Amino acid sequence: MHNDPTPRLSDLVAANDGAASDRRTFLTRASALTLAIPGVAALAACDRPESQPPASSGPGSPPTQIPDNSNSRLDSAVVRDEHHAATSATGGAVDPSSVTYHRFAPELPPPPADGRLVLHWHAREVPVRINDEMVVAAWTFEGDIPGPIVHCRVGDTVEFTLTNDVAIPHSMDFHAAQIDPKVAFRSVPKGESVTFTFKPKYAGAFMYHCGTAPVLMHIGTGMYGALIVSPREGLPPAKEFVLVQGEYYLAPPKNGVRAFDYEKMLSTLPDHLCFNGRPGQYMKEPIRVKVGDRVRFWVVAAGPSHPCHFHVVGEQFDSVWLGAPPASPLRGVQTFTVPAGGGLVFDLLCDIPGEFPFVNHAFGHGQKGAIGILQVE
Amino acid sequence: MHNDPTPRLSDLVAANDGAASDRRTFLTRASALTLAIPGVAALAACDRPESQPPASSGPGSPPTQIPDNSNSRLDSAVVRDEHHAATSATGGAVDPSSVTYHRFAPELPPPPADGRLVLHWHAREVPVRINDEMVVAAWTFEGDIPGPIVHCRVGDTVEFTLTNDVAIPHSMDFHAAQIDPKVAFRSVPKGESVTFTFKPKYAGAFMYHCGTAPVLMHIGTGMYGALIVSPREGLPPAKEFVLVQGEYYLAPPKNGVRAFDYEKMLSTLPDHLCFNGRPGQYMKEPIRVKVGDRVRFWVVAAGPSHPCHFHVVGEQFDSVWLGAPPASPLRGVQTFTVPAGGGLVFDLLCDIPGEFPFVNHAFGHGQKGAIGILQVE
Amino acid sequence: MHNDPTPRLSDLVAANDGAASDRRTFLTRASALTLAIPGVAALAACDRPESQPPASSGPGSPPTQIPDNSNSRLDSAVVRDEHHAATSATGGAVDPSSVTYHRFAPELPPPPADGRLVLHWHAREVPVRINDEMVVAAWTFEGDIPGPIVHCRVGDTVEFTLTNDVAIPHSMDFHAAQIDPKVAFRSVPKGESVTFTFKPKYAGAFMYHCGTAPVLMHIGTGMYGALIVSPREGLPPAKEFVLVQGEYYLAPPKNGVRAFDYEKMLSTLPDHLCFNGRPGQYMKEPIRVKVGDRVRFWVVAAGPSHPCHFHVVGEQFDSVWLGAPPASPLRGVQTFTVPAGGGLVFDLLCDIPGEFPFVNHAFGHGQKGAIGILQVE
Repeated sequence: MHNDPTPRLSDLVAANDGAASDRRTFLTRASALTLAIPGVAALAACDRPESQPPASSGPGSPPTQIPDNSNSRLDSAVVRDEHHAATSATGGAVDPSSVTYHRFAPELPPPPADGRLVLHWHAREVPVRINDEMVVAAWTFEGDIPGPIVHCRVGDTVEFTLTNDVAIPHSMDFHAAQIDPKVAFRSVPKGESVTFTFKPKYAGAFMYHCGTAPVLMHIGTGMYGALIVSPREGLPPAKEFVLVQGEYYLAPPKNGVRAFDYEKMLSTLPDHLCFNGRPGQYMKEPIRVKVGDRVRFWVVAAGPSHPCHFHVVGEQFDSVWLGAPPASPLRGVQTFTVPAGGGLVFDLLCDIPGEFPFVNHAFGHGQKGAIGILQVE
Repeated sequence: MHNDPTPRLSDLVAANDGAASDRRTFLTRASALTLAIPGVAALAACDRPESQPPASSGPGSPPTQIPDNSNSRLDSAVVRDEHHAATSATGGAVDPSSVTYHRFAPELPPPPADGRLVLHWHAREVPVRINDEMVVAAWTFEGDIPGPIVHCRVGDTVEFTLTNDVAIPHSMDFHAAQIDPKVAFRSVPKGESVTFTFKPKYAGAFMYHCGTAPVLMHIGTGMYGALIVSPREGLPPAKEFVLVQGEYYLAPPKNGVRAFDYEKMLSTLPDHLCFNGRPGQYMKEPIRVKVGDRVRFWVVAAGPSHPCHFHVVGEQFDSVWLGAPPASPLRGVQTFTVPAGGGLVFDLLCDIPGEFPFVNHAFGHGQKGAIGILQVE
Repeated sequence: MHNDPTPRLSDLVAANDGAASDRRTFLTRASALTLAIPGVAALAACDRPESQPPASSGPGSPPTQIPDNSNSRLDSAVVRDEHHAATSATGGAVDPSSVTYHRFAPELPPPPADGRLVLHWHAREVPVRINDEMVVAAWTFEGDIPGPIVHCRVGDTVEFTLTNDVAIPHSMDFHAAQIDPKVAFRSVPKGESVTFTFKPKYAGAFMYHCGTAPVLMHIGTGMYGALIVSPREGLPPAKEFVLVQGEYYLAPPKNGVRAFDYEKMLSTLPDHLCFNGRPGQYMKEPIRVKVGDRVRFWVVAAGPSHPCHFHVVGEQFDSVWLGAPPASPLRGVQTFTVPAGGGLVFDLLCDIPGEFPFVNHAFGHGQKGAIGILQVE
């Protein structure tokens, strides 16, 4: 705390005195600290043609108090420095063909047998292949988007350490923790660590994410995941899966790698929206269960901006928990909205065989990849 | 299944390997099959001036992996072929002045007396007049937007057949059905039919829609409606109405008819948003009830993209069912959000006379036509 | 009613026959009545460069039936008349440096001891300072954004009078009132008043707002607030606060004052989104409570367009009421969505000290100012 010179969650104070000064303040400070901002660097490649300056009143343009000198240009100027040239995420050193694709396993892992979930994670910048054609320059927890799916029970002890391997400060905000964010969720500079311990009070599908300002950028560049907390009294036995909806806002490819585009994040029109980091991954490689199974989806809408209107084609939900399970589920639901930054639990009785697509039914966004197949055999 | 050469719901697999290749893949395949895509055809009329090419990084532009060759241009090129010239929906054959306006009846029809709801519908392209000034080139179930409002009770049998009268493949996805979508909700080519039977397990306001890829386009061009399923144990007697919120994303008029604009659908900024297909129709011709009536609105948010923040001005809801009625209603609610692709049930006690507007209270969109009058006399 | 020549809520009929004719009809009528529209006036300052005409198919552009003659130009022309030159809100008479900032007190005021809440408010145009750098030309109830936070109990009597001090007609729509909107919520011209009385039936966090067409403009320019209705049977004792989420869509500054931009409101991409009218105000000056306190947030999402995905960093909600409290709360919730135009009630047990940010967790919008600190000491 006292010896922490980098932005903390409470620095959002400064970052929110007007959305315009937000980014300028943050980036100027970051620059002053000679912090690299790799994910933003590629914005420099995203210039508008000179003949078409951003209109200060356009819907997609950031708010500005200085007409004719948009924030996007200022930001690009700020990040066009030498510190970004050699990062693993955006530099020329990455050969995208060497970055392999893997399906993100959706199965809920078991909770710890001894009631202690001990996690030591690293904030890392890595290229992540999200489909055959695309590699993105990600900010991650443990090298993937989303971060690891973890599981415990109400009252278990979670002992967490984050070590930051990279130049830009990062932090960890667990939605399942009751803890002072100013201390536990503080940002740590490169090479340093933060450690905290908590005991989840409530069951549910809880988001976690980097809380360093601007949070939109840190979630939007890949630093999010799910901690599932099961109730101690138990729920009906089920095949349990975790789906974390995320969004991609990408710059054009540069050397075959796409950086994240903060300007697009502000437009809230993602290029892709998907479950567990890869557009449509469970279409190619479905989630498989048996006739007679009860299936439980722990669904987190990590955002940064969109809720998930979760629906399974050809089925209805037996139960949906809006609060902590197992109390008071809704029964007989076709679609329900997972809040942005929230999580709900959906149970399904697989009485018949078939291929049942699960989707975000707000198709303007959902169709951009938030779809998969539940194969009932 | 095995003898079905046209796209099925599971073809969304291909369509979702990147939103960019989505449309290209779909349209190329459609073109290869010499399928007409009338609703898309009019995109050709929607060219940007050459001096203003679409910015690949703009919020409204589709994601693309090939800078300087946007998808919209490719799509327009694909659909600029002779197959579209003579369609009923967009061709020069339509005289918009011959297309008459009618109010869409919002009353819930009775359920079948014998427990069997037998429906044989046709997928048709027709011009639909949505107000005095506007005729749209619709894709429809049974010639209107929305499709027919139908009603049954939990455990009734729904025997459904869809015959496709038009060149582009279509399908039917009933949210109330528990059924294998790969079989029942498969797309059928022109002149063919699909038949399936189901027994709704749960009460509620269930959406139905065409599930052919891209679903955004098929819902967005008019292929949606509502199947209301009443509980067997009954609800308090009420005057019952069905409101299906839909969105219009329209190209400029061509020969007095407006086609649908897929690019706009991706922007999620509709031109109009309304109940039962016509902007503000129940302002001119209100829904009329008597003092002392309990009024029940079965509200479906068909999207394709927006939920409905449903509110009645000057009233509060006695009951709102988030799950299957009659279990566990919320009591005393001013406004509640119907998920996109979902449905909720709202009860109102009309204790006093007056003109009560019902609205989507998210006015940036709601004001574009999602408003009507409940007249209590 | 019969002697009311100005637009009423039911005038939304006309205003909704196509979103395009909406604004044209409204503004033309307003002009014909020689009504000043100060907040719109500044649109004239917001011209697009001639070389970049608005594309009729662009996502942010208003729908139009007359290509090459956009509504925005028509509106600007309409409002470019002499009637607007001298308004308090936008005229050159305002010295922004004389407009002082004040923190908006979030504490729930006590309900009236005698069960009668007597309110006589004025619709006024005033400059409001929303942070160190920005003064906005507001339409207000009682001179601030939001309007006064008021409080009563179920069954109390609210006696309300609105006097309109300004040239444009205004009105009042209380979501807590069961009353004929055509009479009670009618618009009143300058110098006139409307009076009505009601007894809230249900407990909850109820929005109020100006209901004059176009409602989007009137809410969007500052005319909204909250009436909190406590249940008679009581809730657990708590420190109670009211947070009203609002949005700012602003034109560039003119003489140091920013007018509201209706075109931006239609884009639904706000410049700022905040609680109680000032971006990030409770970051600088937190809401302070003690360890052991139960904290109750009555949260209203006034819109005009966005819901609030309400979350407290480092905490979970003990109870969230979706319907009228004290019935049937959800328990153990990380984040829940307050509908646009609705309100929910959130209870929190402050067991530990710390700085807990409360946010709208849909960060694309939320980060633009919908954040504050709950300081637990």
